[in-house]
Amino acid sequence: MFYHVKELQYEAKPSCPDPVYAKKLQEVLGGQFGEITVMMQYLFQGFNCRADAKYRDLCLDIGTEEIAHVEMLATMIARLLDGAPVKEQEAAYASNPVLAAIMGDMNPQHAIVSGLGAMATDSAGYPWNAKYTIASGNLLADFRANLNAESQGRLQVVRLYEIADDPGVKDMLSFLIARDTAHQNQWKAAIAELEAREGDIVVPTTFPRELEKQAVAYDFYNLSRGEASSKGRWANGPSMDGRSVFQYVSQPVPYGPKPFLNPAPLYIHDTLLPMYKA
Amino acid sequence: MFYHVKELQYEAKPSCPDPVYAKKLQEVLGGQFGEITVMMQYLFQGFNCRADAKYRDLCLDIGTEEIAHVEMLATMIARLLDGAPVKEQEAAYASNPVLAAIMGDMNPQHAIVSGLGAMATDSAGYPWNAKYTIASGNLLADFRANLNAESQGRLQVVRLYEIADDPGVKDMLSFLIARDTAHQNQWKAAIAELEAREGDIVVPTTFPRELEKQAVAYDFYNLSRGEASSKGRWANGPSMDGRSVFQYVSQPVPYGPKPFLNPAPLYIHDTLLPMYKA
Amino acid sequence: MFYHVKELQYEAKPSCPDPVYAKKLQEVLGGQFGEITVMMQYLFQGFNCRADAKYRDLCLDIGTEEIAHVEMLATMIARLLDGAPVKEQEAAYASNPVLAAIMGDMNPQHAIVSGLGAMATDSAGYPWNAKYTIASGNLLADFRANLNAESQGRLQVVRLYEIADDPGVKDMLSFLIARDTAHQNQWKAAIAELEAREGDIVVPTTFPRELEKQAVAYDFYNLSRGEASSKGRWANGPSMDGRSVFQYVSQPVPYGPKPFLNPAPLYIHDTLLPMYKA
Amino acid sequence: MFYHVKELQYEAKPSCPDPVYAKKLQEVLGGQFGEITVMMQYLFQGFNCRADAKYRDLCLDIGTEEIAHVEMLATMIARLLDGAPVKEQEAAYASNPVLAAIMGDMNPQHAIVSGLGAMATDSAGYPWNAKYTIASGNLLADFRANLNAESQGRLQVVRLYEIADDPGVKDMLSFLIARDTAHQNQWKAAIAELEAREGDIVVPTTFPRELEKQAVAYDFYNLSRGEASSKGRWANGPSMDGRSVFQYVSQPVPYGPKPFLNPAPLYIHDTLLPMYKA
Amino acid sequence: MFYHVKELQYEAKPSCPDPVYAKKLQEVLGGQFGEITVMMQYLFQGFNCRADAKYRDLCLDIGTEEIAHVEMLATMIARLLDGAPVKEQEAAYASNPVLAAIMGDMNPQHAIVSGLGAMATDSAGYPWNAKYTIASGNLLADFRANLNAESQGRLQVVRLYEIADDPGVKDMLSFLIARDTAHQNQWKAAIAELEAREGDIVVPTTFPRELEKQAVAYDFYNLSRGEASSKGRWANGPSMDGRSVFQYVSQPVPYGPKPFLNPAPLYIHDTLLPMYKA
Amino acid sequence: MFYHVKELQYEAKPSCPDPVYAKKLQEVLGGQFGEITVMMQYLFQGFNCRADAKYRDLCLDIGTEEIAHVEMLATMIARLLDGAPVKEQEAAYASNPVLAAIMGDMNPQHAIVSGLGAMATDSAGYPWNAKYTIASGNLLADFRANLNAESQGRLQVVRLYEIADDPGVKDMLSFLIARDTAHQNQWKAAIAELEAREGDIVVPTTFPRELEKQAVAYDFYNLSRGEASSKGRWANGPSMDGRSVFQYVSQPVPYGPKPFLNPAPLYIHDTLLPMYKA
Repeated sequence: MFYHVKELQYEAKPSCPDPVYAKKLQEVLGGQFGEITVMMQYLFQGFNCRADAKYRDLCLDIGTEEIAHVEMLATMIARLLDGAPVKEQEAAYASNPVLAAIMGDMNPQHAIVSGLGAMATDSAGYPWNAKYTIASGNLLADFRANLNAESQGRLQVVRLYEIADDPGVKDMLSFLIARDTAHQNQWKAAIAELEAREGDIVVPTTFPRELEKQAVAYDFYNLSRGEASSKGRWANGPSMDGRSVFQYVSQPVPYGPKPFLNPAPLYIHDTLLPMYKA
Repeated sequence: MFYHVKELQYEAKPSCPDPVYAKKLQEVLGGQFGEITVMMQYLFQGFNCRADAKYRDLCLDIGTEEIAHVEMLATMIARLLDGAPVKEQEAAYASNPVLAAIMGDMNPQHAIVSGLGAMATDSAGYPWNAKYTIASGNLLADFRANLNAESQGRLQVVRLYEIADDPGVKDMLSFLIARDTAHQNQWKAAIAELEAREGDIVVPTTFPRELEKQAVAYDFYNLSRGEASSKGRWANGPSMDGRSVFQYVSQPVPYGPKPFLNPAPLYIHDTLLPMYKA
Repeated sequence: MFYHVKELQYEAKPSCPDPVYAKKLQEVLGGQFGEITVMMQYLFQGFNCRADAKYRDLCLDIGTEEIAHVEMLATMIARLLDGAPVKEQEAAYASNPVLAAIMGDMNPQHAIVSGLGAMATDSAGYPWNAKYTIASGNLLADFRANLNAESQGRLQVVRLYEIADDPGVKDMLSFLIARDTAHQNQWKAAIAELEAREGDIVVPTTFPRELEKQAVAYDFYNLSRGEASSKGRWANGPSMDGRSVFQYVSQPVPYGPKPFLNPAPLYIHDTLLPMYKA
Repeated sequence: MFYHVKELQYEAKPSCPDPVYAKKLQEVLGGQFGEITVMMQYLFQGFNCRADAKYRDLCLDIGTEEIAHVEMLATMIARLLDGAPVKEQEAAYASNPVLAAIMGDMNPQHAIVSGLGAMATDSAGYPWNAKYTIASGNLLADFRANLNAESQGRLQVVRLYEIADDPGVKDMLSFLIARDTAHQNQWKAAIAELEAREGDIVVPTTFPRELEKQAVAYDFYNLSRGEASSKGRWANGPSMDGRSVFQYVSQPVPYGPKPFLNPAPLYIHDTLLPMYKA
Repeated sequence: MFYHVKELQYEAKPSCPDPVYAKKLQEVLGGQFGEITVMMQYLFQGFNCRADAKYRDLCLDIGTEEIAHVEMLATMIARLLDGAPVKEQEAAYASNPVLAAIMGDMNPQHAIVSGLGAMATDSAGYPWNAKYTIASGNLLADFRANLNAESQGRLQVVRLYEIADDPGVKDMLSFLIARDTAHQNQWKAAIAELEAREGDIVVPTTFPRELEKQAVAYDFYNLSRGEASSKGRWANGPSMDGRSVFQYVSQPVPYGPKPFLNPAPLYIHDTLLPMYKA
Repeated sequence: MFYHVKELQYEAKPSCPDPVYAKKLQEVLGGQFGEITVMMQYLFQGFNCRADAKYRDLCLDIGTEEIAHVEMLATMIARLLDGAPVKEQEAAYASNPVLAAIMGDMNPQHAIVSGLGAMATDSAGYPWNAKYTIASGNLLADFRANLNAESQGRLQVVRLYEIADDPGVKDMLSFLIARDTAHQNQWKAAIAELEAREGDIVVPTTFPRELEKQAVAYDFYNLSRGEASSKGRWANGPSMDGRSVFQYVSQPVPYGPKPFLNPAPLYIHDTLLPMYKA
């Protein structure tokens, strides 16, 4: 069960409105790697957690913090939209073409649909959807998803920081960037702990290795002519799981035959082979 | 530019048709972490790559292999659908209720839409879409996405292996599981190489740390009452980036004030504050 | 069965082209609360109606009118796109930066995809989809959906009216606004009639009240610290269904215990509890 | 900012697993009118609220409660999936065709993707998306959306109650049904308060009525041949806003002319009129 | 503007309910090539038509007929759902496992969401969306889209006919199949007329041929090793537009060089080339 | 199985960066009729092909070429984004309002999400999805889909050519336009071959004509008042399949009765008829 306090986790106040920046900032609220994604991903991982209590708690602690980040970004976006001039008037713009240029790129839905409020969409106006998230029940897999989400997310916030001028915006982003630093460190720590405990790094660690086709389990196939790819760690030395050695296969060939599919039954009305026609 | 040879990378032939399993197998063809996802993700990372040639080659090599996996899974699904009885006839089923039970759960679109062919959808019939993929231009971020995709993907293939009986199906899956082992090892190796080269683990490593709010960059906030989450590596000891020490904040409080939003201009027709009404 | 006459329900002719306004106007054609939504919602409510003939007729009458509104908006948008300069030429714009600013924000799909025609998308280019609509079979529920759709719809048309300059556009919008006034009144009348007939306001009215957990059926839980929410009608006095009195619970507590989930079977390959590992 | 306590708002424990019911129950978790919808809708209305503090508080209080409902439903679904037999084995089913029938309809993603956990999708496996929600900035419009959501939501939970056998499931649903009763009453109270304060019922109440085409603002157009629709309150007597009288127009005619669209410029490559070809 | 008459274009009445068939029939109502698709596609082509009046009329005539097909299918589906037993009771099913098998595969949303009504979704429960349609402004292109839609549509209806037993269902489908025959013939006739008038078959016919890279305009590239593809009409003889001869290129090679992308500016935080790091 | 060579099929190099054009060019990469669509459509048609080997080969040859087109467009877009100024600085723009106007319309996701790389989305930022494609198993139907895709695709590329200034961009587009000419000719040739072989033009040709309602199989219904539609080939003369004569029905009437739907069972909680209430 959840409780709300009215104070924000961190101040979210721009020095002045900027509806075009509001449009861009939507990316880290409702985009593929925005705060709604991590909020929903961690909460569902926590709700579904069948493992040790401390992992459930970990997911719910960070997931609950992310709701506060959604709140901060929504507040910031609403304030960036304050008093946005929504009308494209030649008269008004004629004396200020720069303003015209900038206002012209406001997201029209911020005026028409949300009435100068934040939306659960990305910077292109595409709505958030649950396929951005994963809770697989396998925590090592999921913590890698989380580390990825925090990496992509921090990268996007940093890019937004770079294109911001407003000191209030930059201040809030510097808080979010720091929290993403914390979360990257924390998920990486949790991954290290699980890899150590499970004694393997290949997810899922519980599938018997002898059931996989071991002969190809460490091959690198050079399928893009030229061998630049042979220069990396992935093509040389012991495999990361410590069980074998990377093999660079310079000229890979197919193991299987040409496929042939049987004709469909008549009631399917696929294209017939001529012999069946007669 | 690409070339195709007609042989499959590995045989994809079931012992006998099984349209219900075909439906389930769609998950790892057209689902969130299916082969289309990794194919598109690695190819776009390669096409867009602005870094060293070997990383571009790495992405395109593995991406090109994944097209072959799409081909194998499509072939297997088409064969599992061979001669599927698409009609639910009480007469036919009365003598074989088990058959009725099983046939009843075939995906109807395999008969009506694709004419016993594979579709680019998941096991619930939801179409593949490009938001399953990421190519951010930052390879450390993206390789974490790749490691995650191979982890979730191998987990799903393993689960499908567990619920399969057909030796032909199991044989092909054991090949795919092994390739996912290879790819998890390879992306992990590439990550290690990049982390070493960039000298940091926090993505992006190029953002000046002094610009983030460093005071909160290693805090863990206990936002779910009870302290089970204090028992993990993420809450104790040096941070994973080696720059600080994890701080467990047992009773976190807000740093920001209560937000207040200004009323919208009249032409937006939001709800008015009563004082503005008069 | 349906018939079409070539005349529009109301004139849809701008004084001059304005491709940027065309982009914005798409919101009330193909957006979440645009005319396609109400057209499809009312028609499906009518087609599926299992209640009195007059309600079926009501839905089909208004639904049929909405097809005409789709036609008017599509016509208006096509005309706003007349002769749109689709090329961003520095030369052309240098002498007229205001034009450049404005033209720059045209929806490129209006040129590339639809060839200066209207599209069934919203102002961000997001396609209309059927999840915008509901036909539940329970008319009291659905008429509330309709009243909501007409409220959101009229609000959006009013906002578009406020940012329009073209007298032809304003004239057509003033017609649509008036029709939304009519429809809000009509759905509200239908709601009042049904509430009176069913003798209750809580949908569905046919579920035995003794089967719900009556002890909590009129509580208001103050879950956001501070008691501003206690000042409203929803927290004081008799409930709107006349069956009880609103209770404001100042410090709500959980009724349930902490959840604990059983470990998954081994074949699922979720994360194992350590005790299971041994 | 938000806090979590580990106790559930209400117990969420079935008597025994039932993976098919788990699939159905997803509808009210991640469906169009499920708990995620109301959670996100109310929270965003609160975050964006520019009106009186008590309305902001109202939205955030109920929105925070809805997070707890998401938690309860996710917990219940995970438990219904406990130990689900995910394999369709003829041998196992031959002796129990009823079991076969029931297990056959489990959502395969509950095994393959979520590892026996809840997903943020509906009962057809379609992912939740943000277009299910609205926060328009106009509270009278939005509270009508909320009343609709609680009406559709309670209707769906009631239907799920009717098809449930498990006493634990029924007990939790009776709690949710009661809370939907409370919320329908509360939103209805808030609507009544706002309608009274704004002095009108037509959203938005702030648009000058003289700017709409008043001649058609109370007409009902009989566009579906036959006059069953004339029998309702919507076609007779004073309009609900008290400003006019409903007019039933038995044989409505178009007010506008036939539209004609100008040919597109040559560079658009639309179909040419023959005269332009020469 | 549109009018409705209450009679159906053709009877839509099954002999008895069949909720599983109702689920399947949804495909040709709300699926990719269902009746909603052709209805919306033809109506928008008509509304946007800038060519001769007879083409506009053609689109609107057939588009208006398709609304009636939507109505017929919705009616049929609602009737197939009549009295559907929505509850999976072991007791009830124990004596009739066949019934259990069949009922188990009903779409749960037909009970929970639509209350035994048709939905604007396909047979997998995926909602109709506007990207299924095209109205490009180029009628030759669009009539090819229409011919395709009628071809895929008739194919799907035929497959549904093959798996139907109910004489009422088969009767209605035989009507729809015949109408699809008519529409395939009609669009093919319109295509022939336009090809003759425009004097070319390559869309758009108005683009100057000398501006395209004519050297490759009739090549067939054999990119899948083996030359089975050389046996078809597409690889031999005069091209269909009568302007050249098909060339079969047995061993195609790239015309372009290896691409190299410049590094991104620092503020983008892409992966850096090592030389830039120093 | 597939192989990649690093050379592009054709050069993809603009003379200078143009991020706004990059946004527009996305349409033919990741849009409804972009290169990803034809790539996936032809590959899946090939993988699923149950007909003669030459048709399978045809699909895979062209499908494999389309992967190269995806690669070319991605490369071009990445280069158009080279060094894009992502910051909207009043200072920078004040001296160059034209630049401001143009830069203002860059897709923000090209900076924030993809780091100056191509995305698998269209020009509005909407992600590619698999419902853009069809592989029905009936090749005559599918080749019509392919002809349509190449027609819409060439039309869009031509429109993009018309609005381009950059000689490098125009050069690459002139190559793609020529390949679309080739593919339109090739699919048209394949259609002609199949129509001749199957001896009919109505898809599917294998359904017995006597099972369709032949009386209406050649009627044209004039459902849009006025008879402009009687002037076309579709309304006069022999039908295109040579089996009948087109009939123009000037005043079409319904063949079916008014529908009436039975009330739903009580446990569905639809609206009740009053007689059932008592």
